[in-house]
Amino acid sequence: MLHAVIMAGGSGTRFWPASRRSRPKQLLALVGDLPLLRMTRDRLDGLVPPERVWVVTTAGTAAAVRELLPELPAGNVIVEPAGRNTAACAGLAAVAVLDRDPEAVCAMLPADHLIGDPERFRSALAAGGRWVAREGGLLAFGIRPTRPETGYGYLELGAATARDDGWAVHELASFVEKPDAARAAALLDAGRFLWNAGIFAWRARDLRLEIARHLPDLEAGLQRIAAAWGTAAQSAVLEEVYPRLPATSVDYGIMERGGRGWVVPVDFPWSDIGSWPTLADELPADDGGNATRGRVQVLDGTGNVLVGAGPVVAAIGVHDLVVVATPDAVLVVPKEHAQRVKELVEALGARGWDDVL
Amino acid sequence: MLHAVIMAGGSGTRFWPASRRSRPKQLLALVGDLPLLRMTRDRLDGLVPPERVWVVTTAGTAAAVRELLPELPAGNVIVEPAGRNTAACAGLAAVAVLDRDPEAVCAMLPADHLIGDPERFRSALAAGGRWVAREGGLLAFGIRPTRPETGYGYLELGAATARDDGWAVHELASFVEKPDAARAAALLDAGRFLWNAGIFAWRARDLRLEIARHLPDLEAGLQRIAAAWGTAAQSAVLEEVYPRLPATSVDYGIMERGGRGWVVPVDFPWSDIGSWPTLADELPADDGGNATRGRVQVLDGTGNVLVGAGPVVAAIGVHDLVVVATPDAVLVVPKEHAQRVKELVEALGARGWDDVL
Repeated sequence: MLHAVIMAGGSGTRFWPASRRSRPKQLLALVGDLPLLRMTRDRLDGLVPPERVWVVTTAGTAAAVRELLPELPAGNVIVEPAGRNTAACAGLAAVAVLDRDPEAVCAMLPADHLIGDPERFRSALAAGGRWVAREGGLLAFGIRPTRPETGYGYLELGAATARDDGWAVHELASFVEKPDAARAAALLDAGRFLWNAGIFAWRARDLRLEIARHLPDLEAGLQRIAAAWGTAAQSAVLEEVYPRLPATSVDYGIMERGGRGWVVPVDFPWSDIGSWPTLADELPADDGGNATRGRVQVLDGTGNVLVGAGPVVAAIGVHDLVVVATPDAVLVVPKEHAQRVKELVEALGARGWDDVL
Repeated sequence: MLHAVIMAGGSGTRFWPASRRSRPKQLLALVGDLPLLRMTRDRLDGLVPPERVWVVTTAGTAAAVRELLPELPAGNVIVEPAGRNTAACAGLAAVAVLDRDPEAVCAMLPADHLIGDPERFRSALAAGGRWVAREGGLLAFGIRPTRPETGYGYLELGAATARDDGWAVHELASFVEKPDAARAAALLDAGRFLWNAGIFAWRARDLRLEIARHLPDLEAGLQRIAAAWGTAAQSAVLEEVYPRLPATSVDYGIMERGGRGWVVPVDFPWSDIGSWPTLADELPADDGGNATRGRVQVLDGTGNVLVGAGPVVAAIGVHDLVVVATPDAVLVVPKEHAQRVKELVEALGARGWDDVL
């Protein structure tokens, strides 16, 4: 059976001040009226019923996740005692899912991405799920790149092996982690490299086999957790073992190291909304190219991203600026420096202003 | 006896979003911990007792003024039914003060200026008061100009007639209303022109005489109000007459038109804090020349004015920008466009966002 595992462990400092420790990006309604996690769950309707939707999240946000997704069985919200990156997260989800369904196929989904055509998305997910149920291996969904992005991993398309419901399945020829600018430009030119969207499909037991092969320490820890799963010792063992698991990503720790990999090129609109300027592409813009959300008034300004998350934002004569206002904190940064928000959040922490973090 | 009349009728849209209709500039603590009006009242301690301090204000702020200055007798807070500029305001104050003290000398004080040396200020005020008590006429206090400011009126120094407690009293040779930039530069060079600080001294009855001479319609209205003052009809007559009085300033309507005028050059630090960039001169600045107030964190920014009136303000890589944050509204404007805040406030009004005005 196809299960969906929503990875909702991110801290999302890049969306400060809208995001906070207790309210990370996936819990925010950055576009439209619904939080990204709620949209991610709703996007599965018709493909995966709530009983087979799982969320892996942190202790600090588990209560908010349960409140946001009341249709999920309580046991389907899995709490990581600490963040250990996506390989451990996927491994833990595999333990929980296998306990319920030894034949489970997992679609792995980031909680905080935007996808523009849910029907097409479900069709691709279903095709990928069928493929790995039959052929095994780990399958990634690849996005056609539109710019030489250095923030993503790239999937190299190998031979096209088959089609399923119109979706081509390729062998994964290689996996390239975040390249530098020159390399990214070359990958874009080469034409056979796709962005890794962080959306995967695999049989839960195949993931465990790959983990055992590439990350034996992680597998050893997962075996201890699996042995205690569903017993009175579950929480205690998880608390003890999980925080010491190796912290690496599925991409880098497993897929880059080879093995049986597949890529399905997908064509639905997709954004990881990785920063405030990226979000701007998803917001309505005025004649001056100002992307706005909330109550915003701008005079003689162009190319700005202006977000009033509560307060009114009023600006005159500014350009290519990000302004985000919440009732207790305000960010002002030129678009080109938006990646430095994390640095700013650290500076606020150093000053002890934890009430706004 | 010396009375002090604090003119507190301003609306102060230039300090939006800190200032609002119901909380104009004079009620704000823009510098230090106390509202400007409170500082203005306290500055009189030792010279004018609360019983002889009067405040002229608007219906919308009268309650806040009474709460802020509980030491004033209730009758000393005079409410203008409508704003009719400073000539009517001063005339109304003269009516009220004369009703109590026919020999009253009034020191007229804007409620929302900053003065750096209260003792020196009181000394100048006392000297000016003594002079007009003896000689009559209208006396203005002049500030030595430091830049070719086009926003102020200029007082031309005539012959020095006397000294009182070290203060020189000059005849007022002429009065120049807000000049254009070329004229302002010429006035600065000429050396004998001082800024009109909007601080005056006169006998209340001498003001009424000058009003009668230059603004007979205003005097006619004041006579109707005076006749009803202290009677059961006071409020009704004020409500009927005042809103239709001619609206002109003391400077333009009376002083510019000649008559017996005096100037006392003063040397105490003074600012009318007319805009956010002007306020910056009064705030502490960091190594990058960023003037800040409240909780502010700035990385690689220079020359900014950053005011967190409640919220934390965090900025990266911005320069010469004004950012003012309140819990429900945020302003972002380059210093050079700060005079356009009024225009912005009008735009917000046009959108019907009255909750933040």
